[in-house]
Amino acid sequence: MYTPSIRSLIEELGKLPGIGPRSAQRIAFYLLRSETNDVYRLADAIKSAKDNAMFCETCFNFSEGVMCSICSDQTRDRSIICVVEEPKDVVALERSREYKGLYHVLQGALSPIDGIGPDKIKVRELLVRLADKTITEVILCTNPNIEGEATAMYLARQLQDTGLTVTRIASGLPVGGDLDYADELTIGRALQGRRQV
Amino acid sequence: MYTPSIRSLIEELGKLPGIGPRSAQRIAFYLLRSETNDVYRLADAIKSAKDNAMFCETCFNFSEGVMCSICSDQTRDRSIICVVEEPKDVVALERSREYKGLYHVLQGALSPIDGIGPDKIKVRELLVRLADKTITEVILCTNPNIEGEATAMYLARQLQDTGLTVTRIASGLPVGGDLDYADELTIGRALQGRRQV
Repeated sequence: MYTPSIRSLIEELGKLPGIGPRSAQRIAFYLLRSETNDVYRLADAIKSAKDNAMFCETCFNFSEGVMCSICSDQTRDRSIICVVEEPKDVVALERSREYKGLYHVLQGALSPIDGIGPDKIKVRELLVRLADKTITEVILCTNPNIEGEATAMYLARQLQDTGLTVTRIASGLPVGGDLDYADELTIGRALQGRRQV
Repeated sequence: MYTPSIRSLIEELGKLPGIGPRSAQRIAFYLLRSETNDVYRLADAIKSAKDNAMFCETCFNFSEGVMCSICSDQTRDRSIICVVEEPKDVVALERSREYKGLYHVLQGALSPIDGIGPDKIKVRELLVRLADKTITEVILCTNPNIEGEATAMYLARQLQDTGLTVTRIASGLPVGGDLDYADELTIGRALQGRRQV
């Protein structure tokens, strides 16, 4: 019932993560009703982000040059590296304003079920970086889920004889959260991680 | 923390309906990781749908010419018009294969709160079409929600002296649904609309 170009728009939108057939249809109709300028701005933003996106050759975060803005920032603490799974994790950590060191983006987490072993993520590149003697601590900031924990454990084992301080970001109750709403695993972790006040 | 082009991509994606900041980020990262060809295919589908989309000058459904495929189909019953809010409603009705008449897409519903009066939707155009004596019945198929009901009531009043048969699509329990899960308004409507078997 749709014209070919609308059908292909709905089809392409439906391939995006989290966009089902209904959302795809809704977005397509929204675009068809929007100002041509706005629609072109979206299409151009997609192309231009794709054209400009490259990865930092040091930390593998997104970058618009061979070195990202964090790696090239000389005010940051170059003795500590925070290992994360994805560029969005860098954004989340930067938002906290707690951390002033460098990052290493693995671009994934170990997941044997999906066939993702250490060679599929930036593990080798991390080990190469750590050979540099200015680095003294590695914080394992992979997600507190099965894949993230497995990745952290794998890296901890790889790093155990390097003499580096290897730490794992704490799990516990979210600030502003409610004990009542926390799941039992989180409460368990929060208890294990209790600290003297 | 993002590069300018990634920031602007996330911003543009976040303007789409149903896409919050988190989904926008997720989709942006998905696109940055996808094949360039696939990303360009999406951007081009957006532009081309927008470039090709026009509205049928008769029924105001999407069309790739001045007259849509339904209005120009001579096998359809030209004595009956089904009035809907949006092009997607035409698609839904066509899927049912129950209806063989023509459509009229209002391109919206009355909503005084949002400042949408009869002049903002294709009401005048409907009245012009109905002046044609081949039409004998109008089915009001606007959505069974507040705006849709108000629109149907408004149209019914406008059409009451035209001698046309004006009907409203039935409300009731969805087929395959469960009485237990139906809300009280739907059950009320289903009871009001009961028919002798």
